[in-house]
Amino acid sequence: MERHNYGVIGLGVMGRNLLYNIADNGFSVAGFDLDVEKVKELHAGATPGTTVLGTASLEDFVSALETPRKIILMVPAGKPVDAVLGSITPLLSKGDIVIDAGNSYFKDTDRRIAELASKDLHFMGMGVSGGEQGARRGPSIMPGGDLQAFNHLQPMLEAISAKVDGEACTAYMGKGSAGNYVKMVHNGIEYAIMQLISEAYDLLRKGANLNNDQLYQVFKTWNEGEMNSFLIEITRDIFQQKDDLTDGYLVDQILDKAGAKGTGKWTSEQAMEIGVSIPTIDIAVTSRILSAYKDERVQASQLYSKNEISTPENTELFIKEVGDALYLATLISYAQGLALLVKASEEYKFEIPLKDVVKIWRGGCIIRSVLLEKFYQAYSKDKNLSNILLDKAISEIVKDKISSLRKTAAFAASNGISGLGIQTTLGYFDAYTTESLPVNLIQAQRDYFGAHTYQRIDREGVFHTSWKTSNN
Amino acid sequence: MERHNYGVIGLGVMGRNLLYNIADNGFSVAGFDLDVEKVKELHAGATPGTTVLGTASLEDFVSALETPRKIILMVPAGKPVDAVLGSITPLLSKGDIVIDAGNSYFKDTDRRIAELASKDLHFMGMGVSGGEQGARRGPSIMPGGDLQAFNHLQPMLEAISAKVDGEACTAYMGKGSAGNYVKMVHNGIEYAIMQLISEAYDLLRKGANLNNDQLYQVFKTWNEGEMNSFLIEITRDIFQQKDDLTDGYLVDQILDKAGAKGTGKWTSEQAMEIGVSIPTIDIAVTSRILSAYKDERVQASQLYSKNEISTPENTELFIKEVGDALYLATLISYAQGLALLVKASEEYKFEIPLKDVVKIWRGGCIIRSVLLEKFYQAYSKDKNLSNILLDKAISEIVKDKISSLRKTAAFAASNGISGLGIQTTLGYFDAYTTESLPVNLIQAQRDYFGAHTYQRIDREGVFHTSWKTSNN
Repeated sequence: MERHNYGVIGLGVMGRNLLYNIADNGFSVAGFDLDVEKVKELHAGATPGTTVLGTASLEDFVSALETPRKIILMVPAGKPVDAVLGSITPLLSKGDIVIDAGNSYFKDTDRRIAELASKDLHFMGMGVSGGEQGARRGPSIMPGGDLQAFNHLQPMLEAISAKVDGEACTAYMGKGSAGNYVKMVHNGIEYAIMQLISEAYDLLRKGANLNNDQLYQVFKTWNEGEMNSFLIEITRDIFQQKDDLTDGYLVDQILDKAGAKGTGKWTSEQAMEIGVSIPTIDIAVTSRILSAYKDERVQASQLYSKNEISTPENTELFIKEVGDALYLATLISYAQGLALLVKASEEYKFEIPLKDVVKIWRGGCIIRSVLLEKFYQAYSKDKNLSNILLDKAISEIVKDKISSLRKTAAFAASNGISGLGIQTTLGYFDAYTTESLPVNLIQAQRDYFGAHTYQRIDREGVFHTSWKTSNN
Repeated sequence: MERHNYGVIGLGVMGRNLLYNIADNGFSVAGFDLDVEKVKELHAGATPGTTVLGTASLEDFVSALETPRKIILMVPAGKPVDAVLGSITPLLSKGDIVIDAGNSYFKDTDRRIAELASKDLHFMGMGVSGGEQGARRGPSIMPGGDLQAFNHLQPMLEAISAKVDGEACTAYMGKGSAGNYVKMVHNGIEYAIMQLISEAYDLLRKGANLNNDQLYQVFKTWNEGEMNSFLIEITRDIFQQKDDLTDGYLVDQILDKAGAKGTGKWTSEQAMEIGVSIPTIDIAVTSRILSAYKDERVQASQLYSKNEISTPENTELFIKEVGDALYLATLISYAQGLALLVKASEEYKFEIPLKDVVKIWRGGCIIRSVLLEKFYQAYSKDKNLSNILLDKAISEIVKDKISSLRKTAAFAASNGISGLGIQTTLGYFDAYTTESLPVNLIQAQRDYFGAHTYQRIDREGVFHTSWKTSNN
């Protein structure tokens, strides 16, 4: 029997599409899934002329692969990954490579790397972003782990990934579970940007009374300029989608309760764990949580009637300001996520090449955007930049847009339109760019009631004061 | 030898003060610490006429206690607690009670309850708040766990705790690790309020150019009215404290880098874990993290020069608005923390009596405030209130202050003074009181790129759409 170049386990829509993508690029691929229907249908969906084999058992699957075997897992994170590893590792040979392409938690990946290493097998965590279409036509791919194992995969990954200016949207993301970590932060940034876009939408529909046709035009225009990005593009399309079940637009019929699959939450927890401030991502996570409390929100909305909104006098100007605010808040969300990667790289010794991260995010993935090109330039000048807000060229963009972010945040605050993401992002920016925060008072309070001590601005050391109570 | 009523292990300042407090109330107490100096000094610090015994070994300590033994641990959370338990449990008898009065993580307490139960011993988690002075003169005490064990302790706890209108600031907080959980959330709320006070301070010093004497007067006035609370009171005092090492006020010499001991972070992580939105607490945690990046902040402040601040025309009015904003944002911080307790009580089957929580927080603890009396009234009317913002009487307070919160948030946004806590709190309020959030768009986006499906407002079910790309 002919041996296949690659194997894919898990033939759900993402796994199947990734498999077809690999096959389309001239590699032969065997697939396996516990669901026999998915195995049966596999061959029929392949591009004619490509070599795709559905296998009915793990034994057949493993036998169908050339060695060292290169097996991609696309199964749900958590127990399913361990279950597959438990079944398949006894069938593998020294030097085989297992690549987890799902959204696994990075600490699980570290554990699995050690477990498989003890059996002379390679295990890699690899982030894949781009949704169903991306998996099929060219995703952004974030592999990390053993460098030798990566070298085996590199030609295939470069072939199947998205391309920007002829450059593949994949690169080695670092040691250990760096691939999963980078993907996790990608998703955290994705949460933040989606939250910000939804707030811009709310400001435009409630603040400036724009209808869906007008919103379509606004997002179309935004997507044609400096805000060009995947998420702006699909938002444009969403406003044009008619509902099949009623007369109106579909977006107006969708319930305002957001789901979440956990990667945003992991990002926030990680940032708290290792001490990085990413409030726009945090707020996006908590905002989805809040959205689920629909019954309470309805009850509260009846108790607290909203003020009349003071519609802006100049609609065109308002739209421009909201757009600039969205652009800048998006930029600051990337800044937070990238700062988390810088710290994580240190903390976990990942050695993440930030320059490559923003380079491969330029295409294929959900947060692709023309902004990434500017970040790429920033890291090209200084690969150790701790926060992209500290780059000179980036700072010029920020200065150009900051007054719009201020006006938009103040408009939301004044008019009772929740701008959680926009307001929080501005608060972060103002805190980050402030030499003297009022945190001296917090340290005084902590020392007052808990003797937690404080540092001084004028000399070294740790101090404690017996604070006097005035009691008057 | 006479047997003592209580034992305390860990004679640091908190443990020693709690021990003296118990002795002052007519109970005999034995103490133990690995540090022999602390044991030696113990007796000398006790109130004359009270029965206090320092013991030189765990064996002596255990022998000195009447049965069932009631042993309070006041040692650092984590491994030290397990170390003490490992040493002491072999020396104990069936039915003895060990009470962990430190800030232990609630899941550790659940584990220890099970471990000690297997040895026929009772283990309880008990939150104690009030700092050094509180421990000595009357803290707020939050015990939870085995109800029978609690009954043994109740008379002592009621004797040593703070009193408000003759009522003791202690009550049974619920099953399992409820005592630790309530204390954790107490600390989360404490983080939020401290953050908000620090922002009010920043707005007054930078926005209205108030000096420390004027700040003292403002906080003094605030503390005499509806804002009366421990944290406002000590803030007042802080502005009067002269520096021993220079000519000025101490607060101006303290470095603006805040420390943290983890309970705020745990609160945020828990809220994400069980799906409750507490953004003011989250932002307080992340704000302390951000404060630690002093070098970056200095660098950023040089790159981004601040705008001139447009000082308000009417200083008196501005101070009033900032005060009202602080009052309301503080109220909403409690609302978030209490909503977390409601959900946690369900999730972990704690059966936390919310009415008793706010009752015992009225005195002794760091977040004591006259506001708690209003919450107590709210829960007296409806003990199942899911969020105190839904109480009619509370809503009248909110409506009275909301325009000040809006103006203050807008002022911070417009003038580049970071109002992270104030802005986020307003954003939370506006989202919580909004029937239709723009989250329908987020669900549309998720369905567009990831086929994550959505619900509709007009019919039951779960839907997926093949979204059209306009590509024009």
